[in-house]
Amino acid sequence: MLYIIGLGLADEKDISVKGLEIVRRAERVYLEAYTAVLLVEKSQLESYYGRSVIVADREMVESQSDDILAEADTKDVAFLVVGDPFSATTHTDLALRCQQHNPPIPTRTLPNASILTAVGATGLSLYNFGQTVSMVFFTDSWKPDSFYDRVAENSTLGLHTLVLLDIKVKEPNLEALARGKIVYEAPRFMTVAQCASQMIEVEETRKQGVCGNDQLAIGVARLGSDDEKILAGTLEELSQADFGRPLHSLVLCGSTMHEMEWEYARTFAIDQEKFDGIWKKNYGTKK
Amino acid sequence: MLYIIGLGLADEKDISVKGLEIVRRAERVYLEAYTAVLLVEKSQLESYYGRSVIVADREMVESQSDDILAEADTKDVAFLVVGDPFSATTHTDLALRCQQHNPPIPTRTLPNASILTAVGATGLSLYNFGQTVSMVFFTDSWKPDSFYDRVAENSTLGLHTLVLLDIKVKEPNLEALARGKIVYEAPRFMTVAQCASQMIEVEETRKQGVCGNDQLAIGVARLGSDDEKILAGTLEELSQADFGRPLHSLVLCGSTMHEMEWEYARTFAIDQEKFDGIWKKNYGTKK
Repeated sequence: MLYIIGLGLADEKDISVKGLEIVRRAERVYLEAYTAVLLVEKSQLESYYGRSVIVADREMVESQSDDILAEADTKDVAFLVVGDPFSATTHTDLALRCQQHNPPIPTRTLPNASILTAVGATGLSLYNFGQTVSMVFFTDSWKPDSFYDRVAENSTLGLHTLVLLDIKVKEPNLEALARGKIVYEAPRFMTVAQCASQMIEVEETRKQGVCGNDQLAIGVARLGSDDEKILAGTLEELSQADFGRPLHSLVLCGSTMHEMEWEYARTFAIDQEKFDGIWKKNYGTKK
Repeated sequence: MLYIIGLGLADEKDISVKGLEIVRRAERVYLEAYTAVLLVEKSQLESYYGRSVIVADREMVESQSDDILAEADTKDVAFLVVGDPFSATTHTDLALRCQQHNPPIPTRTLPNASILTAVGATGLSLYNFGQTVSMVFFTDSWKPDSFYDRVAENSTLGLHTLVLLDIKVKEPNLEALARGKIVYEAPRFMTVAQCASQMIEVEETRKQGVCGNDQLAIGVARLGSDDEKILAGTLEELSQADFGRPLHSLVLCGSTMHEMEWEYARTFAIDQEKFDGIWKKNYGTKK
């Protein structure tokens, strides 16, 4: 059996009791480490689980899945995913490969907390979110803005948008690659400030009033940990805010943000008077 | 400290290791039992946690929250919520009361798996869901159809819609109430079949092509448990399908359901040939 086990968001103790039992008895334990990261080191997981953990990077999952699935038809293999397994496409990939394996490998998935729901900590109702978008690091020559169309669609319906921020782990250095060497860059994690700046930058080109300076948004960092940080304000304010260590995410507030959502979200405001003023003027309207 | 702790979806072992540690040492342990239910009895929780658990029904949470919060400024109180705490407004209510308490009561929330993400088990991408809607039990004289407008909005954007199904626990019997007696009805949980029928019924009146007989949908039951059941088909097929014990939910597929989603979802099809035919004809189109 291949067990795909969600680890939750913060540390080694966010795994479920059921998941921990499986990890402790499994033949091998893998950790998916390229779509998200925990806030603790692998060694801390290993020491708490009492098991050695094999880090599965993108290359291993995509090209060497036979190694991961070896003997999984007769033995238990645990594949750990930060957050919730279903929130990454890795899950669907692996599960499909198990179905197509000869003989088929049974799979079982253990769900856990995901950023998609933990973002409810902002006070915004999860029922009022539209589709989720991703924001990638802009470069001088590559500023993909397809997120803007999705945000605009949500915005038309007055819905909030969760923006998931790019992480780059184990990216090869392109200059070294051109010389035939593989050297990995240091990991990079997009900050709330970078995301807010990129949104404002795209708004300046697209000009549909979707994510300009005065749009209300809420930045979050390290959700689910002791050290979580939530700040609400305009995109301009958030583009200057320091949220500290990764992981960060951002929610752009939809215009229907109702009174109860506002009452809770304003407790996180960088400048409460400003936040209240903009909310009263532009938000809380019924669709 | 008031700890609001998500229990996950299925049984007593879906709590996180961190959550279990808090439950075992807390002064009092409450269980929110009116927006969702676990698939096991309270006694099974109590026996595994080694603690007695006080069931908090809607009345207690809404009218007697002072009892729940008593001494929480100096002692640890655990408030357990089925699924993820942020997926119900109970969380926001309680947390706001804690902030407004004199002296303020510190709170900490432990996220867990939610139906909002566990529904990824269908193979549909969580990034392609629009707003979530609720379906209540229709009566002869009351058939609220505001869900239809939300589904239509999602549908315009080609997005999937998660439909959460009504549960009635501890509802007073109205005839007895009229005679001055409080007698509670037996708990009722909406089935996928009932939901699909009600959607088709509303489509017959509203006629915008949002949720008619031939729309593809996926029903799920007891997600996250050993016993989970997933079936895909037309709403008409699902209106005849038997999913067994609660809890059930339904996803109406959006027209952008792409090839990889279809490839996975079709493995759950009641009638695969029919499912494939409708998908090829009406779905998978780019926005």
